[in-house]
Amino acid sequence: MIFKRYESEGLAHYSYLIADEGQAAVIDPRRDIDVYLQDAAHDQAYICRVFETHRNEDYLIGSCEIEEATGAEVFHADKQWDYRYGTPAEDGQAWMIGRLKIRAIHTPGHTPGSMCYLMHDPNGNPWVLFSGDALFSGDAGRVDLLGEERLEEMARLLYDSIFNKILPLGDSIILCPAHGAGSVCGSKIMERTWTTIGMERMYNPVCQVESEQAFIDLHAQMLERPPYFRKMEVLNLEGPPVVGRLPILSPLSPEDFGKLMPQAQIVDTRDQVSFGGVHIPGSLSMWDHVLPGFAGWFLDYDRPILFVCDPENAEDIVRIMFRIGFDKLAGYLREGILSWVVSGKPIEKLSLVTAIELCESMKTDGDQFLLDVRAEEEFKGGGLKHAKHIHLTEILENLELIPKDKSVFPLCRSGNRSMLAASILQREGLENMKLLTGGLSAWQASDCDFEL
Amino acid sequence: MIFKRYESEGLAHYSYLIADEGQAAVIDPRRDIDVYLQDAAHDQAYICRVFETHRNEDYLIGSCEIEEATGAEVFHADKQWDYRYGTPAEDGQAWMIGRLKIRAIHTPGHTPGSMCYLMHDPNGNPWVLFSGDALFSGDAGRVDLLGEERLEEMARLLYDSIFNKILPLGDSIILCPAHGAGSVCGSKIMERTWTTIGMERMYNPVCQVESEQAFIDLHAQMLERPPYFRKMEVLNLEGPPVVGRLPILSPLSPEDFGKLMPQAQIVDTRDQVSFGGVHIPGSLSMWDHVLPGFAGWFLDYDRPILFVCDPENAEDIVRIMFRIGFDKLAGYLREGILSWVVSGKPIEKLSLVTAIELCESMKTDGDQFLLDVRAEEEFKGGGLKHAKHIHLTEILENLELIPKDKSVFPLCRSGNRSMLAASILQREGLENMKLLTGGLSAWQASDCDFEL
Amino acid sequence: MIFKRYESEGLAHYSYLIADEGQAAVIDPRRDIDVYLQDAAHDQAYICRVFETHRNEDYLIGSCEIEEATGAEVFHADKQWDYRYGTPAEDGQAWMIGRLKIRAIHTPGHTPGSMCYLMHDPNGNPWVLFSGDALFSGDAGRVDLLGEERLEEMARLLYDSIFNKILPLGDSIILCPAHGAGSVCGSKIMERTWTTIGMERMYNPVCQVESEQAFIDLHAQMLERPPYFRKMEVLNLEGPPVVGRLPILSPLSPEDFGKLMPQAQIVDTRDQVSFGGVHIPGSLSMWDHVLPGFAGWFLDYDRPILFVCDPENAEDIVRIMFRIGFDKLAGYLREGILSWVVSGKPIEKLSLVTAIELCESMKTDGDQFLLDVRAEEEFKGGGLKHAKHIHLTEILENLELIPKDKSVFPLCRSGNRSMLAASILQREGLENMKLLTGGLSAWQASDCDFEL
Amino acid sequence: MIFKRYESEGLAHYSYLIADEGQAAVIDPRRDIDVYLQDAAHDQAYICRVFETHRNEDYLIGSCEIEEATGAEVFHADKQWDYRYGTPAEDGQAWMIGRLKIRAIHTPGHTPGSMCYLMHDPNGNPWVLFSGDALFSGDAGRVDLLGEERLEEMARLLYDSIFNKILPLGDSIILCPAHGAGSVCGSKIMERTWTTIGMERMYNPVCQVESEQAFIDLHAQMLERPPYFRKMEVLNLEGPPVVGRLPILSPLSPEDFGKLMPQAQIVDTRDQVSFGGVHIPGSLSMWDHVLPGFAGWFLDYDRPILFVCDPENAEDIVRIMFRIGFDKLAGYLREGILSWVVSGKPIEKLSLVTAIELCESMKTDGDQFLLDVRAEEEFKGGGLKHAKHIHLTEILENLELIPKDKSVFPLCRSGNRSMLAASILQREGLENMKLLTGGLSAWQASDCDFEL
Repeated sequence: MIFKRYESEGLAHYSYLIADEGQAAVIDPRRDIDVYLQDAAHDQAYICRVFETHRNEDYLIGSCEIEEATGAEVFHADKQWDYRYGTPAEDGQAWMIGRLKIRAIHTPGHTPGSMCYLMHDPNGNPWVLFSGDALFSGDAGRVDLLGEERLEEMARLLYDSIFNKILPLGDSIILCPAHGAGSVCGSKIMERTWTTIGMERMYNPVCQVESEQAFIDLHAQMLERPPYFRKMEVLNLEGPPVVGRLPILSPLSPEDFGKLMPQAQIVDTRDQVSFGGVHIPGSLSMWDHVLPGFAGWFLDYDRPILFVCDPENAEDIVRIMFRIGFDKLAGYLREGILSWVVSGKPIEKLSLVTAIELCESMKTDGDQFLLDVRAEEEFKGGGLKHAKHIHLTEILENLELIPKDKSVFPLCRSGNRSMLAASILQREGLENMKLLTGGLSAWQASDCDFEL
Repeated sequence: MIFKRYESEGLAHYSYLIADEGQAAVIDPRRDIDVYLQDAAHDQAYICRVFETHRNEDYLIGSCEIEEATGAEVFHADKQWDYRYGTPAEDGQAWMIGRLKIRAIHTPGHTPGSMCYLMHDPNGNPWVLFSGDALFSGDAGRVDLLGEERLEEMARLLYDSIFNKILPLGDSIILCPAHGAGSVCGSKIMERTWTTIGMERMYNPVCQVESEQAFIDLHAQMLERPPYFRKMEVLNLEGPPVVGRLPILSPLSPEDFGKLMPQAQIVDTRDQVSFGGVHIPGSLSMWDHVLPGFAGWFLDYDRPILFVCDPENAEDIVRIMFRIGFDKLAGYLREGILSWVVSGKPIEKLSLVTAIELCESMKTDGDQFLLDVRAEEEFKGGGLKHAKHIHLTEILENLELIPKDKSVFPLCRSGNRSMLAASILQREGLENMKLLTGGLSAWQASDCDFEL
Repeated sequence: MIFKRYESEGLAHYSYLIADEGQAAVIDPRRDIDVYLQDAAHDQAYICRVFETHRNEDYLIGSCEIEEATGAEVFHADKQWDYRYGTPAEDGQAWMIGRLKIRAIHTPGHTPGSMCYLMHDPNGNPWVLFSGDALFSGDAGRVDLLGEERLEEMARLLYDSIFNKILPLGDSIILCPAHGAGSVCGSKIMERTWTTIGMERMYNPVCQVESEQAFIDLHAQMLERPPYFRKMEVLNLEGPPVVGRLPILSPLSPEDFGKLMPQAQIVDTRDQVSFGGVHIPGSLSMWDHVLPGFAGWFLDYDRPILFVCDPENAEDIVRIMFRIGFDKLAGYLREGILSWVVSGKPIEKLSLVTAIELCESMKTDGDQFLLDVRAEEEFKGGGLKHAKHIHLTEILENLELIPKDKSVFPLCRSGNRSMLAASILQREGLENMKLLTGGLSAWQASDCDFEL
Repeated sequence: MIFKRYESEGLAHYSYLIADEGQAAVIDPRRDIDVYLQDAAHDQAYICRVFETHRNEDYLIGSCEIEEATGAEVFHADKQWDYRYGTPAEDGQAWMIGRLKIRAIHTPGHTPGSMCYLMHDPNGNPWVLFSGDALFSGDAGRVDLLGEERLEEMARLLYDSIFNKILPLGDSIILCPAHGAGSVCGSKIMERTWTTIGMERMYNPVCQVESEQAFIDLHAQMLERPPYFRKMEVLNLEGPPVVGRLPILSPLSPEDFGKLMPQAQIVDTRDQVSFGGVHIPGSLSMWDHVLPGFAGWFLDYDRPILFVCDPENAEDIVRIMFRIGFDKLAGYLREGILSWVVSGKPIEKLSLVTAIELCESMKTDGDQFLLDVRAEEEFKGGGLKHAKHIHLTEILENLELIPKDKSVFPLCRSGNRSMLAASILQREGLENMKLLTGGLSAWQASDCDFEL
């Protein structure tokens, strides 16, 4: 028997493989499906069904890829929408995977047709709930995807789904949501990596509300919506293109890389320290740990992408981009940034300063422009006193707010987002930037006496 | 963060690795510790603590091996016994692994000092109970290890541990026992591979009892006790020898194998069909899937062991034997049984018959001796009408009950144990044996009209 | 830099990957190309060229698969034939792979357009000759593929290629042929796994001849030609179908397996001992070590194939079949033969006898029909005195030569081919067969006094 | 059969595993022996012999580790020295590994007792020469290890070994030396990764000499000798300590790392760009690609070593250090330099300048101190006009030659060694340093008009 979770890092997306007596099923597969195929084969099982909990908006679903590989039958939720593949699952519909019964439960709220799937143990007792984006560990699914006008409606639906359908299943049920901490699909998801309905009932803030209205007040919020969501939504209805083999990212010499630059977007996945040290003019800083979260915000699907990265990460980068549908991957710099500097090609730098250095310069000079690029909640939670807040994702529309005659210090919690902001600004022609390395965390850890 | 389970196949032993913020701990490690080291390293964590739930009797503990490799501090339960390593854990004692609090709960019954360890989530809420051999999925730990005279006493202790210490922790706690289905430490363990306290409260028979006495009536039983338990118990107090590198099983030519045979025990891990086809005279049939369960019953620690196996399984076999302390591994037959037959060396066979063939011969002849070698419970649950029951583990003491002048048909459920029985009897000189291939399962599946 | 050889086991096919400074090329790729892609990526190289030494007849070429994956340019030999892909290589044409110069040398004989490719070291000195099927270690390529009427013509061409083009390159050149020992493309290939032109000049029998005529006398022979060669030749001109992902072999329950049997061919890849013990009626015995060599002889491309195998070998079996173009793979028996016997389904057996048993029965009885199924050369080299010779591949056409009223003993060197012969005969209805386990090797190793 | 080469990267050390018919041998094993054990096991072979070509000076030999693991017999060369393990090989002594004959040939010169081992193919023909440090691809072993007074004597011995013992074996023999390009044991080794005696006879400069005297004139040179050679020589006579399991490098929080710093040496294995961006005060820059070559020059065996590295490289770093006997490995910074900067701890930087920037500043200012740290041959081969030459390994003894009142620009070919030099100088208190990123290669590639 298999009951296994897969985390797509960066997206914090969870998918699940179950298998029993030679049959297997995947819940919410990602697009690179090799792990499911391998694990199922190892257990001498074939994947005969795929269950989608909802039309996903933050990654491309792997259902069609699996269907092509194994002939599996695909069941999707949101039957009211116009899918070009698969079959809609009905509320109450049930299937057997070996001895394991799976039953669909309609739990609208995140989307109108969202489904949970309840798995029973080999003895037939309710056991595991695959809850999709209805209920997470410490949070619930966002209800703003259909727009502000339907926000309250969706929140009411979700309230009903959670309180009248999910929680009544009982404290002892193991809860398996579609996302973990770090997902854009739930900003307050906890790091309780495995959970139960009972733990959510007791500790999840959205389950503590006294009334439907209190739930709406707490949870019915318009959240950030990365522009790539639109593309995911469209492709997840059409069925993403089936490819079979993961694309290959071509290694490029500095010469070949340079030739492709005029038409391309350049993404540098090295860390803030390396990027600050030296980078290629015009490149964006997206550290590989945060690439999955930012690619969909700042990259254009229609232009080729060039990467500067640790060459050992090339395959991981392809996977990340493949999962969110970026197919125009032009290549990466062979032997990394060193080959570039050795070839004498043009470079740029971004000065890194420590908290103490920033602090000193603020004391003696005062002519800094502190630019806090964190999310609004973070900014409200405290920061440097005179900082101006422009969220990272809104910088391009607010360039005019940033002075060209001052030293600009982009700020964030640990320095990664501020380096991305700085790289965007540098590409737009801004000079005189300095980066607080380690971000506000470093500031707090230092003994700077300047008022935070 | 890591929260991961490891199954030692065949033993159905579960161990667990947890890690957070660079620190890691293992609960009930097995002796081949490479998996823990690798996974901890991958998470950039070092193993700083080992927690034992009790003095294990069915495998060798890896605590000393980890201590040697990482300098981890070892905590054991059963402090009343004379350990030569580590430190006793105290009831209520707590530790931090990163942000995860671990608290020891004294839950005697399986052994006098058995401990459970309750892990809290990063927010400090009770989360996961490592329950050792106190409570399994569908069963509870055996209470007969201290002998019949203390059977009831231990059962009372376990009743108290389960009903007054474990179940009160609440339905929503994830329950992580030390064994899964197939272990000799609990014959009724269910295949609900992950469970919660609530599911056990509702579905575990030992939790359904009305009173302490009912629990004792149900659960206070003397069970089979493989002879190797004694060795495990001794070594798990002394601390098993630390080796660092897993032993290597030498490939042997038929000539070299033959030279070592006079002093050695020969174990053939191929399946019943292959073993029946051809095997080396004197060898015991222990299919590799059941080897971990039978090695400790039928093999002698003091004599070297030779293996006939699929050569690709050689490392797995070393692991299996290493986990239960067999260190005198003399080698395996290079290129398997084929090299033996090609070299023209002596062989033996054991005839395989189908249910229909057996059925026919019983109708026409009647002079068969049907020898059912299953466990007593299985035998009572139904079998062939005229079969004589001698449990597999008691055959050697009951040789005189088996007639030499009849066709002997050892029987079991699927044919593996009966082939082991046949190989033992053949080694003891019995002839005229035939094997019902596929065992009673095959009989039931066929349309034999002879009364079962 | 990469200079690496890949062996396709069973076929004894060698392919080569070379890479330098980010560029890579493959010589004679097999159809499952993942190894080349992975190794090239690991070296930060992309495969920009594929070189074929000739139109292969014993496996499907992976050129089109690579072209699809990386956009590589494909160069083939035998430009006189009508390829549907790639570009013909010209004699003397040269390419650079990083600093490594590759030069084509026309060496006809095996096929009319066969090419060798001479690789120079980074300093420009001649270094390695990829010799395709022109010259092997200990043998030369077969010259009979265009039929008997062109046999001598092709042999003369090959003589010229070897003596006037290859050997003059000098003793110090490393020689990299397309096959190693065990290939059907050269029956005398030696186990000198790496060789040089000098070693072949000195030790290869085909290089020892005094004259062209002596070469023809020695080497111009019509050899066995498995029927699947025809299919390979056709597909290697058309370009084999491109698939991307390796097919998946479905695990089947005994019930599902049974349902598919009427339309299917059944191949059992277990060893002779297991197959003799128990097998499914109608199945052919092709031990997995010899499967690549026999599948093309005895299996039909148009009917689905079912496998009985060690489940851990399922992926290897897919690879083997995929390499020679068998795409109708219906599945394999989940959990192997044991699931079949446990389910009580019909089985058959084939008796295994030892040399001593056979010898005794020959002395006392004499009514055996000894059927030697080895190749003619082997048979001429010695065997059992009264054996009748019918080559394994000719048994089906010679069924009438095999008596139905005698005990038939198929014989070969080690027992694998004779078991295949026995399984064919059993499928055709012959009874009364017995197998000399270990074959004539076992006979020779025993002290049987009956005259060999 | 196995005939496989293993490269220890960075050291450019080659070792070899051979196996036939269940027996295996290793030539010049490295200390981390897991690869040999795994590959031998996979071929169903056990390692029964180890052959050393000479007492190695640049890495620790794995002979004792293998002896402990498999009971192999160890043969060493240099029998005149006082080994504490193994048995001396005698000139002409021969062994069989399956069908492969190995014969020892005394080839003094690199050391007095150096041995080559000639392997014959399965037919008994001379096939492969394991030449140790006698003859490389494009170079010969150094003859200066016994000191200047014996330089000529050793060179004469080596001349005799090469010309009278090795070359006469014939052009067609495959030559397998103990080192490839990049080794400190031969500065001119070519990138012809596989070679033959014939190719060396024709293309190796040391084989082109007209006379013994010409050989001496060309080759009898005192070369650089890293200080760790002495330790290797001693341990390779005593037998390096046997450990079984590779040590584990502990991940350390910034706090724990900081606590260990006062007693420790800090090595930063990130690239020049990252190191320049931010590093920990007092740390030495040794990029992981060059770590094996520099660790033995600049690190002290008696003080613990702390690493700043890509955490994914931690195991590789342990391997590198283990191979050259550094056992006091205190740990590495968990989550790398980012955790350090986020924690607000003190950092340092080293400015990176481009060739154009340097060029401009030289034109306008002229007050730069250009410090060329390359080897003397490289320096003589061309560089920046006004540069002062101090070899990297002699900087510490020549600190007084470096002005404190000028901008100091350490220079090397590509920027790695100059960054190491800069980090040493920074640790010694020098300020005002700037690094030409990409080194002289970048200079040459740019259009700087300042005279090179």
